[in-house]
Amino acid sequence: MIPKGFLFSTVEAAIKKPGRKDLALIYSEAEANTAGMFTSNKVKAAPVKLDMKKIRSGRGQAIIVNSGNANACTGKKGMEDAVEMTRLAARRLKIKPSLVYVCSTGVIGTPMPIDRITAKIPGLMDDLGKSSIEDVAAAIMTTDTFPKILMKKIRVGNKIGNIAGICKGAGMICPHMATMLCFIMTDISVNQQTLNRALKDSVKKSFNRITIDGDMSTNDTALIMANGMIGNDELSERSEAYAAFKKSLDEITYGLSRLIALDGEGATKLVEIEVKGAKSEADAEKAAFAVANSSLVKTAIYGNDSNWGRIMAAVGYSGINVKEERVDIYFGRVKAVDKGITTGRDIEAAKVLKGKNINIVIDLHLGKYAAKVLTCDMTEEYIRVNADYRT
Amino acid sequence: MIPKGFLFSTVEAAIKKPGRKDLALIYSEAEANTAGMFTSNKVKAAPVKLDMKKIRSGRGQAIIVNSGNANACTGKKGMEDAVEMTRLAARRLKIKPSLVYVCSTGVIGTPMPIDRITAKIPGLMDDLGKSSIEDVAAAIMTTDTFPKILMKKIRVGNKIGNIAGICKGAGMICPHMATMLCFIMTDISVNQQTLNRALKDSVKKSFNRITIDGDMSTNDTALIMANGMIGNDELSERSEAYAAFKKSLDEITYGLSRLIALDGEGATKLVEIEVKGAKSEADAEKAAFAVANSSLVKTAIYGNDSNWGRIMAAVGYSGINVKEERVDIYFGRVKAVDKGITTGRDIEAAKVLKGKNINIVIDLHLGKYAAKVLTCDMTEEYIRVNADYRT
Repeated sequence: MIPKGFLFSTVEAAIKKPGRKDLALIYSEAEANTAGMFTSNKVKAAPVKLDMKKIRSGRGQAIIVNSGNANACTGKKGMEDAVEMTRLAARRLKIKPSLVYVCSTGVIGTPMPIDRITAKIPGLMDDLGKSSIEDVAAAIMTTDTFPKILMKKIRVGNKIGNIAGICKGAGMICPHMATMLCFIMTDISVNQQTLNRALKDSVKKSFNRITIDGDMSTNDTALIMANGMIGNDELSERSEAYAAFKKSLDEITYGLSRLIALDGEGATKLVEIEVKGAKSEADAEKAAFAVANSSLVKTAIYGNDSNWGRIMAAVGYSGINVKEERVDIYFGRVKAVDKGITTGRDIEAAKVLKGKNINIVIDLHLGKYAAKVLTCDMTEEYIRVNADYRT
Repeated sequence: MIPKGFLFSTVEAAIKKPGRKDLALIYSEAEANTAGMFTSNKVKAAPVKLDMKKIRSGRGQAIIVNSGNANACTGKKGMEDAVEMTRLAARRLKIKPSLVYVCSTGVIGTPMPIDRITAKIPGLMDDLGKSSIEDVAAAIMTTDTFPKILMKKIRVGNKIGNIAGICKGAGMICPHMATMLCFIMTDISVNQQTLNRALKDSVKKSFNRITIDGDMSTNDTALIMANGMIGNDELSERSEAYAAFKKSLDEITYGLSRLIALDGEGATKLVEIEVKGAKSEADAEKAAFAVANSSLVKTAIYGNDSNWGRIMAAVGYSGINVKEERVDIYFGRVKAVDKGITTGRDIEAAKVLKGKNINIVIDLHLGKYAAKVLTCDMTEEYIRVNADYRT
C-alpha cells in the first residue's frame, strides 16, 4: 500500500520527446524526517548541490523531479533554475522552499527549458493526488524500459506502517553513489539520525553495489521521507520495530538495485558477481567490481561464453592480492575453475549462461570476506542506445 | 631496413583456425643486450613468468611466439609447456635456453596444444630466414585486422643503425602494462642498463597510455633486443647518438601504440584524449584514462555526438580535483565548453567527430601538467567480436 499522506502528480512539460510525462511531484501531507545520499562525482548537477544544502535540516515535504535534462554542467543559470523550481513549487504548496527538494535526470550540459517547466508547475500542483506512484516512476524514466517500484508493510507495535520506493536508472550507473534517482517514502515515524544511518547502510549494499557501465553520474540521488502519519512513537535503532523497518528498507533498496541492473541499457541478462574467500570486504568488493565492469566479461556473458580467463584477468588487475593457484570459479552450480585451472566443464558452464539470471562465484580462498555486485551483460543494443542518445 | 642479423620464421601449427600462421621465431645472429617489460596484472601467463626470470640476465638471442592460446591460467603444465618451447628452440638453434624468450597470446585458460607446437618447432628453425618481418607481425595477430610494424634509421657516428618494432593488440588493452606483445629489434649496440631505462621511459608514454577496453591482459610483454651488429661503440645515455636512438625508439613505441588504438576491436575512429592544465602529470593521466575508458564517451564518439557532459562526468569521477567552472573542452579546434558550460557549438563539434582521427582536449586550468591517452570508439562490432571470441 502507498504510505499514508503521500500524494503524486505528473505532467508533460515537453522536456523529453512529445507524448511522455517528464515532470513529477511527490508530496507528503505532513512534514517528514528526510535523509539523502548523493553522487560522489566531483562534478555535481545543480539540483544535487542544492539538495545537499537542504538535507542538512533533516526535514522535507515535497520532491519535484524532471527527466530529459540533468541540469548538470549548466553553470550559474542551472542553479538559478533549480532554485526557481523549488521556489515556485513551495509557493503553490504553501510550504517553506527549504522543504522542497529538486531532482533532474537526462542530458548533461544543455540549459534547462525552464520556461516550459515553470509554465507547468501550477498545473502540477493543482492536479496533486490525480497521479499514481506508477505515473511518477514512469515520468522519471530516461532510457529505462520499465518503471521501478517496490513496497513493503511493516508491523510497528499495534500499527501497520508502509514503505514504498521508486527509482530510475539504466545507464551511467556505477559504484560509490546513491544511484541515479531513488525516492523512498514511509508513513512510519523514524528518528532523523536513525533514518540517516539506515539509508547510508542500506545504500552501501544495494545501490553502491551495482554497475551497468562503470560511469558514475553527476545526478545520483537517493531521498527517503518518513512522515510518521501512522502515528507511532518515533523509531530509533533501539525500538523493537526498527529491525523490521530496516529489513524492509534493505529489501527495497536491494530490490530496486536489482531492477536497475535488470534494466541495464541493452541488457539481456541480470548478472550477480560474488567474490568470496577474500582477506577483507574491501578486497572482495574491488575484485567483484573489476569483473562486473569488464567489457570483455560482459560481452562473453552476452555471447553465452564461459570465458573465465577474462574473469581471472579482471581479478588479477583489480588491485587486490590474488593467488591464482587457489582460485575457484563457478557459473551457477558448475565449477569451471578449480585451483586456478580449468575443470573442462565449459559446455555445462555455457548452458548456465543461456539463462536470464546468472550467478558467478569467485572463491579466492584467502580469507573469510565476501561481496556481491549486480550487473548485466553488454550488447550491441547498449552501443546503439548510447551512440544515438541525443539524436 | 630490417636491423642487421635478425632473421624470421613462421609456420602454421594449428593453434588458431586453419589457414593462419600462428607460430613465429625472431632470431638474432649475435647475442643481444635485451630489456623487457611485462604486465602488472597479478595473474600472469606462464611465458610472462618465465621471461621475467630470463630477463634478469639482460641477454637474449631468440623469441618464440605463438598466437591462438595465451598459455595463461594453465597451472604447472602451462609452465612446463613454456619451458619446453624455449628448450626445443634453443636445442635446434644451438644456443643456451636462457637466451630464448617465449610469448603467447590468445585464449586464456585453455591448455596449450603443445604436441602440435613441438611438432612444428624443427621446421620453424629450419626455415629461418624464409619469412619476412611482415610474416611475423601477421602470425602474432589475434583479433588484429592488420600487422603492425614500424622501422627507423639512426645515424650512430659514421654508421647507420636500424630499429624495427612489431606488435599486436586489439582487445584486452589497458594501462599499466607494456601492451599485448611488442618486439623491438636494433642492430645498434646499446648498453644493457641504458636499454632498460630507455624502454621503460618509452613505454611509459606510449603503451602505458593506450586503452581499448580497460581490460589489462595477463600476457603483455615488450621486449627489445640490441645485437650491436653495425659494430658501433656501445651506446650509453652519455653517447652523442643516444638522443637519436631514444627519439627513434619513442617514435616506434608511440607509433605502434597508435596502430593498436587504430585497430581497437570494432573501432572506426582513433581518439586522442589530452588533459592539460592539471596540477600534476598523474592527475592529467588519471582524468584522461577515465574519459578514454568511459563506455558512454566511446559510444557517443561512435555516434558522432559531441556529448561533452559524459566527458565532464568522467573527469568528475576520475578521482582528481576538478573545478567545473574552469574546464574548457575542445573537439578538434571547436571549443564546445567554456568555463564549464556549453558554447552552443554542438553541430560544429559533431562535424569534427565525423572524422577518423579525433582529438579531444580537456583543459582543467588548474596547473601546467598534461597527458595524452590514445583510445578508439566503441561499436556494435566490439560486442560481436568479444561475444563470439571463442566460438
